Amino acid sequence: MNELEILRRLPDLLPQNCGVLTGPGDDCAVLDFGGRVLLAAVDQLIGDRHYLRSVTEPAAAGAKLMKRNLSDIAAMGGVPRWALLTVAANGREAEWILKLIQGAAEAGHRYEVAVVGGDTASLASEGECCTLTILGEMPGNQKAVLRSGAQPGDLLVVTGVIGNSFASGHHLTFEPRLAEGAFLCAGGYASAMLDISDGLLLDALRLAEASTVSVLLEKEAVPLRDGATRENALSDGEDYELLFTVPPERFEKLMNCWPVRFAPLTRIGLVTAGLPGVYDRTGASLTKGVKIGYEH
Amino acid sequence: MNELEILRRLPDLLPQNCGVLTGPGDDCAVLDFGGRVLLAAVDQLIGDRHYLRSVTEPAAAGAKLMKRNLSDIAAMGGVPRWALLTVAANGREAEWILKLIQGAAEAGHRYEVAVVGGDTASLASEGECCTLTILGEMPGNQKAVLRSGAQPGDLLVVTGVIGNSFASGHHLTFEPRLAEGAFLCAGGYASAMLDISDGLLLDALRLAEASTVSVLLEKEAVPLRDGATRENALSDGEDYELLFTVPPERFEKLMNCWPVRFAPLTRIGLVTAGLPGVYDRTGASLTKGVKIGYEH
Repeated sequence: MNELEILRRLPDLLPQNCGVLTGPGDDCAVLDFGGRVLLAAVDQLIGDRHYLRSVTEPAAAGAKLMKRNLSDIAAMGGVPRWALLTVAANGREAEWILKLIQGAAEAGHRYEVAVVGGDTASLASEGECCTLTILGEMPGNQKAVLRSGAQPGDLLVVTGVIGNSFASGHHLTFEPRLAEGAFLCAGGYASAMLDISDGLLLDALRLAEASTVSVLLEKEAVPLRDGATRENALSDGEDYELLFTVPPERFEKLMNCWPVRFAPLTRIGLVTAGLPGVYDRTGASLTKGVKIGYEH
Repeated sequence: MNELEILRRLPDLLPQNCGVLTGPGDDCAVLDFGGRVLLAAVDQLIGDRHYLRSVTEPAAAGAKLMKRNLSDIAAMGGVPRWALLTVAANGREAEWILKLIQGAAEAGHRYEVAVVGGDTASLASEGECCTLTILGEMPGNQKAVLRSGAQPGDLLVVTGVIGNSFASGHHLTFEPRLAEGAFLCAGGYASAMLDISDGLLLDALRLAEASTVSVLLEKEAVPLRDGATRENALSDGEDYELLFTVPPERFEKLMNCWPVRFAPLTRIGLVTAGLPGVYDRTGASLTKGVKIGYEH
């Protein structure tokens, strides 16, 4: 069993309890807290992996960490409420750490999210390892939109444009699609949803595996960010757009009532019955050999 | 402003929102989630800081991380429910990481806590940086016991024995005082409480500062673990015992009804009106120049 296989099987090895509506493996855990739906997720931000240590302003790095987690709440159709933040660092002034934390807090504040706890520590060697835990809720106690709800016949839709996130700076400047996600959930439009963090192909594969369906991806329909090539857009990641499926009978209504202030929608594929995977029009697999790691 | 001063002021700089009953600065954040009290805290576990990379079994390291967080729930009088876990590592096999995660999950399972989410990532240089976020609740919607509730006249009490935690292995083998904390809260015995993680003196100072009171500590009354010297016991830390204050009129009742299966109680001091600090019988400060960092 290789590394990825071990970590891939991990969610199945973790015993759950009776309050867990959806455990590890979706964008957020979905928890029954006294009859109300609590959402929880955690994500990491590592120096020179998620930002450039020599270039990125600490406030921008902190804001990115917060917004990545807000994007996970958006992908459930939820509303974010609170965050907890850890910073382990070595080789940074306290001022730098403070700016990172304040950057995260300010990005959260714009979405009415408060940083309610945290911890700072020193790392053994130079670098930074930060984490943020986001807590949220489902408004009106709606059901969260999971990755597993796609049905054959559903259409595959994406918000915004894809690709070239690093070079364009989008990975720092993006805004989480909270309003879009909440709208898709409240209107019953999205049968399955996740946010695109690790590349469109890989995230489409996650949706396909969770829903046990085939995804037919129309590569040429994928809306590209300025400077993105079609191939890179499929694999680059860090887009933080929503990828979701819509029952065909709801699609026209969705396109007609989608607010103009929201990120535009593009239909990029179709869900069919078949082996879990992502395929092109000819039926060739686009994700052969691609493995999905453990996250959330 | 020095490093510690910056991080010490941090909790005041983080804007809170209307659901926050108690924000950063206590063992847990206390949150109003639809009329029910949600507890949340996060803690880090860093290789060669909280465990010895060359010696400690990964399952023991993972269990320690879980139990440290359970101890924070105990210090509020709460019941733990769920956890989210991150591991950033470099130079470890997937098997090692898996064992750490399973060690945490098993330690949680003994207290009916499920690991509902997480993330693994690679660290830039050799080492590990892990975090765990704990979520819990107050049974019967009781008020959480804060650090800030001590009143002049209250008695200072500690569970168990103190000191020599590292050499004895207690820092790995301890059990969080969940039953004790819940009992102290439910019975209205504890006016203020926290767990001893950074040393009795420093944690007593935290209680004194949060409650704006003086703590008179009877050093010679502190119950020592085998092998502990009196001086080291005050500063070593990692005891994970509960330090709390009891109104004098409740003390006798508490001692009479304290279950024998619980860790024993020892009265080790007195709360008085005065400048926040920890003092000996002669009124000499035991914490002069001691600074409190940012945590939780």
